[in-house]
Amino acid sequence: MPVIRVGLAQLNMTVGDIDGNVARMLEALDEAEAAGADVILFPELSVTGYPPEDLLLKPGFVADNIKALNKVVRRTRSCTAIIGFAEKGLYNSACIARDGKRIGVYRKRHLPNTAVFDEQRYFKAGRGGHRLWDIAGLQCGVSVCEDAWFPEDGPIARQGALGAELILNINASPFYAGRWREREAVVRARALEAGAPVVYVNQVGGQDELVFEGGSMVMSATGELLARLPQFTEELVFVDLDVAGSVTPPTMAPVPDLDDEVYTALVTGVRDYVRKNGFSDVVVALSGGIDSSIVACIAVDALGPEHVHGISMPSRYSSDGSRDDARALAERLGIDFRTIAIEPAHAAFVEMLAPSFGERPPNVTDENLQSRIRGMVNMAFTNEKGWLTLTTGNKSEMAVGYFTLYGDSAGAYGVIKDVFKTEVWRLSRYVNARAGREIIPEDVITKPPSAELRPDQKDEDSLPPYEILDPILEAYVERDQTRDEVVAAGHDPAIVDRIVRLVDLAEHKRRQSPPGTRVSPKAFGKDRRMPITNGYRV
Amino acid sequence: MPVIRVGLAQLNMTVGDIDGNVARMLEALDEAEAAGADVILFPELSVTGYPPEDLLLKPGFVADNIKALNKVVRRTRSCTAIIGFAEKGLYNSACIARDGKRIGVYRKRHLPNTAVFDEQRYFKAGRGGHRLWDIAGLQCGVSVCEDAWFPEDGPIARQGALGAELILNINASPFYAGRWREREAVVRARALEAGAPVVYVNQVGGQDELVFEGGSMVMSATGELLARLPQFTEELVFVDLDVAGSVTPPTMAPVPDLDDEVYTALVTGVRDYVRKNGFSDVVVALSGGIDSSIVACIAVDALGPEHVHGISMPSRYSSDGSRDDARALAERLGIDFRTIAIEPAHAAFVEMLAPSFGERPPNVTDENLQSRIRGMVNMAFTNEKGWLTLTTGNKSEMAVGYFTLYGDSAGAYGVIKDVFKTEVWRLSRYVNARAGREIIPEDVITKPPSAELRPDQKDEDSLPPYEILDPILEAYVERDQTRDEVVAAGHDPAIVDRIVRLVDLAEHKRRQSPPGTRVSPKAFGKDRRMPITNGYRV
Repeated sequence: MPVIRVGLAQLNMTVGDIDGNVARMLEALDEAEAAGADVILFPELSVTGYPPEDLLLKPGFVADNIKALNKVVRRTRSCTAIIGFAEKGLYNSACIARDGKRIGVYRKRHLPNTAVFDEQRYFKAGRGGHRLWDIAGLQCGVSVCEDAWFPEDGPIARQGALGAELILNINASPFYAGRWREREAVVRARALEAGAPVVYVNQVGGQDELVFEGGSMVMSATGELLARLPQFTEELVFVDLDVAGSVTPPTMAPVPDLDDEVYTALVTGVRDYVRKNGFSDVVVALSGGIDSSIVACIAVDALGPEHVHGISMPSRYSSDGSRDDARALAERLGIDFRTIAIEPAHAAFVEMLAPSFGERPPNVTDENLQSRIRGMVNMAFTNEKGWLTLTTGNKSEMAVGYFTLYGDSAGAYGVIKDVFKTEVWRLSRYVNARAGREIIPEDVITKPPSAELRPDQKDEDSLPPYEILDPILEAYVERDQTRDEVVAAGHDPAIVDRIVRLVDLAEHKRRQSPPGTRVSPKAFGKDRRMPITNGYRV
Repeated sequence: MPVIRVGLAQLNMTVGDIDGNVARMLEALDEAEAAGADVILFPELSVTGYPPEDLLLKPGFVADNIKALNKVVRRTRSCTAIIGFAEKGLYNSACIARDGKRIGVYRKRHLPNTAVFDEQRYFKAGRGGHRLWDIAGLQCGVSVCEDAWFPEDGPIARQGALGAELILNINASPFYAGRWREREAVVRARALEAGAPVVYVNQVGGQDELVFEGGSMVMSATGELLARLPQFTEELVFVDLDVAGSVTPPTMAPVPDLDDEVYTALVTGVRDYVRKNGFSDVVVALSGGIDSSIVACIAVDALGPEHVHGISMPSRYSSDGSRDDARALAERLGIDFRTIAIEPAHAAFVEMLAPSFGERPPNVTDENLQSRIRGMVNMAFTNEKGWLTLTTGNKSEMAVGYFTLYGDSAGAYGVIKDVFKTEVWRLSRYVNARAGREIIPEDVITKPPSAELRPDQKDEDSLPPYEILDPILEAYVERDQTRDEVVAAGHDPAIVDRIVRLVDLAEHKRRQSPPGTRVSPKAFGKDRRMPITNGYRV
């Protein structure tokens, strides 16, 4: 049976950095030639990075991307390259190039326009009949990402009906937890429909709120997974694919583990946001709580301990335990650590506002003052030292608005904004288990959560326990269930009513929060475009 | 010739407030019956308000909107009602109802998915042949908004070809300056193509960053404008339309004036954002500069002077002139006014940060501290009193990042964020001219702009003069011109390079800024979806 040497270029592109992306592709082309590869697949829109968003509306950007594509095309030799680019018109296309020439262009047919995607904002859909390309004697069908998600009469099945012997599918398909299973099932279904093996190449890396996990694969015509690349690492792998159903050398990354893939996604999100934006260091306010603890761990794994700076900012209400926990964590992580008590600024604001607010006991205004003073200190370090501020709010808090706008939400990147509190606990145990020692102090994991903005404050004074809250939020936010459906699932109606109202009322706060890594099927961000002004009461 | 009595319901709906919207429609139906109207047109998606955004992804919301539609349908009597609703499936539809029953549904065919629009995210396009409905003996074609923007073989021309004697087009078409001319030209073209008069009804009011100006109209079959409703006011008008080309009684609002329509749009944006979100009062930091001055004027016109609160927050660098100008403006507007010196907090932060930052002259960190202290004071009033903070940054500043994140950009609504500085000057003169007296002190209009965050600071120390800056921004931001195109138009290459770079680098700051009224064809907001992480260098 025919054997083809295939290069899977699971690369980390940068949106807009056309020159950098092209340089990376030219290197890979050289390696492909040296390896004697027959074909190499780059990710979807590899020239521009994905998603380029409104850069595509700049005619100059599209022209530059075409020039860059032509440069890559001219450098091809005997190895056929499948290159993602924005074709004038505008199409999301794959260029098939060999011997310095374009030998064809495939235009993406199915343009996702839901969830985080806006492709119909930019692109027209490819139409008309399908065709195949001869690569190393095999009749090959080419398609782009979403095209693989349409069954039966979709592009891949049609290419199969034309007699395709091999299916090449290039992707920029974002991560969420457990998504790899669905991805693998879809590729398997397409291979079976087409009656041909499928080579699936996905990009890797972070882009604003999205991360891409790679997880490129080869599936046999009979639906057997022949190769799987690792998640979250750049890979340039060459394999010999026997279309009868084998891959040499063996290339099978382990099955992803849930905690591991989520944690690594978060690390990737921070690393690429910081580095691709030209920064090296970050600052994290360490409260001694679990959220800031896990954020510090993620930052250290992303950037190295020498690039992470912790600040403890105790107020008149902070417990000694919290200060000790913050310091202990910093020591275990080996990061820069300092303490800046916020009392001088706190006292100054109270004094400045007293003539307007009069005599009254401390209230939510005062709580917000403390949080905002901390946000200001973080941002002063951003201004003075160029350390990006990482925010520490989790998805449960983002959902119900349990954070201070311009306070703890002030910063460049919301590391765990798509991670529910109950998942934060789980990831904390994962961090300690993986290290084989206590990185996050056990006390931090087990003590009752508190914002410590007033004496003896506990999260549970304001919110139901997170074990009750998180499933309600998951149903209402991620699955768009109605209030009645959530109640029917067994939740206390009074709690559901209160939570639903809190979620709806916090939209204006979320809108001004920083981006953060999406790890769920529906994150706060491009995924969920709710009006702020909203009279709907469920 | 046949005469039909037409009701134009140019109403101000609230997104999501299905009950409120329906109540308003039921009232209008009663008025229509009392007036003996044959047909009444409500705006596009009048049941849900426009744009409902991701509320449409909630199955419960769509079900509630259908129930509400049925309530309106059941209340119809002899007057035919054209009602915008979200049809299950999902379609952006117009229901044609009479005598308590649906007599038809028209599904919008052209779904805008560019600029601020995401309709392909939610809706499928209507397809198939067209039909007409008999209303008061006239064969009528019905269409929705964007359908009217497709010439020649578009929906309205096809309805004309079927013999339509009257075209009914319902809209939720957002404002930008001068848009009314284009709107009128489009309706004229459709009337001529169809050979039938067109009744065009548009909604009015503000929804987050969008405002809708109304400006509903009747166009004759020969392209003569027969009726024009005013901008920015709710109207329920009944006219007798003789399809031969006349409207009785005369209903011709004046041609919009540019400054007047922009100013009124800004007033509408603030008023509806504040009120539809359940608030009554606002607070504005009055620096004595022109931006905060015009924002205060707009707020007073939107909400009344008793609902506007000015705070002067002098620092060690504030001039006496600025404090006097702030006070003078507040007195002329008759608003609450107080002074809170920020020195105590400023000194406290400097002291808290000194151990980390060491001895050095004041720098941009200190400038941002001052701006953020002011933002914190505003927000303390929001927390304590429920006064929404209005921000005062203009489009020139938003574009180049000449503002402090969490400082002067902290607040609920960015009143003039889509107004270039040169337009702010023009609007200030308009305010004084309209009042027939000096509301904004002449000195405020003529003095050189300054942030007053360091001694003798002037905007022109950091930026080119606004007369040079604004045209560059208009070309680069609103028209997506390349750097080379902007230079070719006659601008200094060095200045263009610097400005383009500043615009690109400020994306992360804009992303966390509050929404504000769109008055241009491309505002910062849903209109311009740029990646933050962006390696593109033009």
